[in-house]
Amino acid sequence: MEQVKALLFDVFGTVVDWRSGVIRDVTALAAEHGADIDAASFADRWRGAYRPAMNQVRSGELPWTNLDGLHRRTLDQLLAEADREAEGGREAEGGREAEAGPGGQAGPGGQAGLKGLDEAGRSWLTSCWHRLDPWPDAVAGLGRLKQRYIISAFSNGNVSLLVNMAKRGGLPWDFVASAELFRHYKPDPQTYLGAAELLSLSPAEVMVVAAHNDDLIAAGDLGLATAFVARPGELGPNHQANREPARPYTCAAADFGDLADQLGA
Amino acid sequence: MEQVKALLFDVFGTVVDWRSGVIRDVTALAAEHGADIDAASFADRWRGAYRPAMNQVRSGELPWTNLDGLHRRTLDQLLAEADREAEGGREAEGGREAEAGPGGQAGPGGQAGLKGLDEAGRSWLTSCWHRLDPWPDAVAGLGRLKQRYIISAFSNGNVSLLVNMAKRGGLPWDFVASAELFRHYKPDPQTYLGAAELLSLSPAEVMVVAAHNDDLIAAGDLGLATAFVARPGELGPNHQANREPARPYTCAAADFGDLADQLGA
Repeated sequence: MEQVKALLFDVFGTVVDWRSGVIRDVTALAAEHGADIDAASFADRWRGAYRPAMNQVRSGELPWTNLDGLHRRTLDQLLAEADREAEGGREAEGGREAEAGPGGQAGPGGQAGLKGLDEAGRSWLTSCWHRLDPWPDAVAGLGRLKQRYIISAFSNGNVSLLVNMAKRGGLPWDFVASAELFRHYKPDPQTYLGAAELLSLSPAEVMVVAAHNDDLIAAGDLGLATAFVARPGELGPNHQANREPARPYTCAAADFGDLADQLGA
Repeated sequence: MEQVKALLFDVFGTVVDWRSGVIRDVTALAAEHGADIDAASFADRWRGAYRPAMNQVRSGELPWTNLDGLHRRTLDQLLAEADREAEGGREAEGGREAEAGPGGQAGPGGQAGLKGLDEAGRSWLTSCWHRLDPWPDAVAGLGRLKQRYIISAFSNGNVSLLVNMAKRGGLPWDFVASAELFRHYKPDPQTYLGAAELLSLSPAEVMVVAAHNDDLIAAGDLGLATAFVARPGELGPNHQANREPARPYTCAAADFGDLADQLGA
C-alpha cells in the first residue's frame, strides 16, 4: 500500500448517486409533459440496459460508441418499448387511442407519457447522467486524498460527461481517465493498464477505488491495488448489492473519509 | 466569442516558465556534481532540440514517443555532444585527460562536467519539465476563467508530465488534453479536433490560448477560436519571439488576468 501514488475512482455508484439523479430529472421531465411516470422504475430499467449495450461494444458487435451514445440508444429503446406496452394496454382496454394527445404526445398513463418525447427532450434526458450529485462524503474525502495522491476519475463515462459532472459537483480530479481514451470499457484490461501507463506508473503504484466487486477483481488480477468502498444505497432501498467485499482487497472502507483515514491522507 | 464553452491552454511558455525551471534544475545538478555548466545555454540547446525530435515523430521517421521520451533522447544526445566537445577541447589543450575524475565523472570545465551523469541523474533531469513554475498571473487567472469555462491543458507534454506539473503548481485543470491521448503532436489537426471531440464541442465552441503564433494559426485554420497571450520573457532577455500576434485572433491579452477580463470571467 505504501507504494501507491495514484487513486483511480470508479464514478457511477462509487462517487456519485446515479439513481437519485436520474429519478430527479425523469420526474422533472414527466411533470413538464404532464406524464404519469414511475421514475424509479424508469431509472432502474435504463441503468439495467447499460451493461448489455456496453457488452455489445466490448464483444465487437457494435463499433465503438461512447457512453452518451449508449445512453441515448438505450433511452430510445426504452421509450419505444413503453410505446408498445401502451399500445397493448390501450387495445386491452378497448381501443381508447383518443387518450393520446395531438402531435404524437401521449396522454397520462404509464411510461407512454413520454412516447412523443422530441429530440431536445431526449437529448436533455440523456445528459442527466452529466448532472449526478456526489455522495455526501465524496467531495471532502477527495479533497483530503488529493493532498497526498494523484486522484483520477476512472469510469466508463465519456470525457465530456465526466468533466461536466466534476464541474457541477466540485470533484477535484487531477485527471479524467475515461474509457473513451482507450476505446475500451471496463473491465477490459486496456483500461486499467492504459490508465497506469498514462500516469507513468506501474500497476502496483495505482489503486482502484470502487463499490463494485467486478471492477476490483479485474484490477486486482492485473496487479493493481484495490479499495472497496461500501455504497449500500446505490441500487435503492430494496436491493442488497455492493454491501460486502467479495474477496480480500488492499483495503475496505465505509466511505471516502474512512478511506482517507486508512491511507494517511 | 459568445459561443465559446471551453478554453484549451498551451502550457510550455504560455502557462509555465520553462526556461527558468530548466535553468534552476540544471544549476542544482551541476552544483551537486561540482560541474561548471552554462545552465542557460544548456536549457536553450535542450529546448532547441525539441522541435526537430518532435518533427521526426510527426513525419513518421520515429514511432510514437511521448515528450518524456523525447526529452530523454535529446538529453542523451546533448550530453554526448558535450563529451565530444570536451574531448576536442582537451586534445587542443594538450591531452589533459587527467582532469576527468574517477568513474567517468568529468572534472570542472564546460558541459563535460555532466558527461558521466548516471541513469538516476538523467532521469531526474528529464523530469525537470514536470517541475516548471507557472507565470505569476497564471494560477489566479485560471481560477477566474474556470468559474465560467471548461479549462483544459492542451499540450505536447505527456499526461504524467502535465498532471505532476499541475499538482505542484496548483493549476486547476478540468481536463488534461495531452498530445499523448491522440498520439499526434501539435500542430497536427488531430490534436485540435480530437480535443474538441472529447469535450463534445464543435470547433467554434473551443478557444485555444497560446503565446505562439504557429499554434494559434493552426487552431484558427480549423475553425477554433483563438487567444494570443504575450509572454515576452519566454525565451529569456535576449530574444524577441512571441511579443506580437502575427494575425488578428479572436482576442489578444497581456496576461491571464487581462484574458479573464476580456472573456467576462
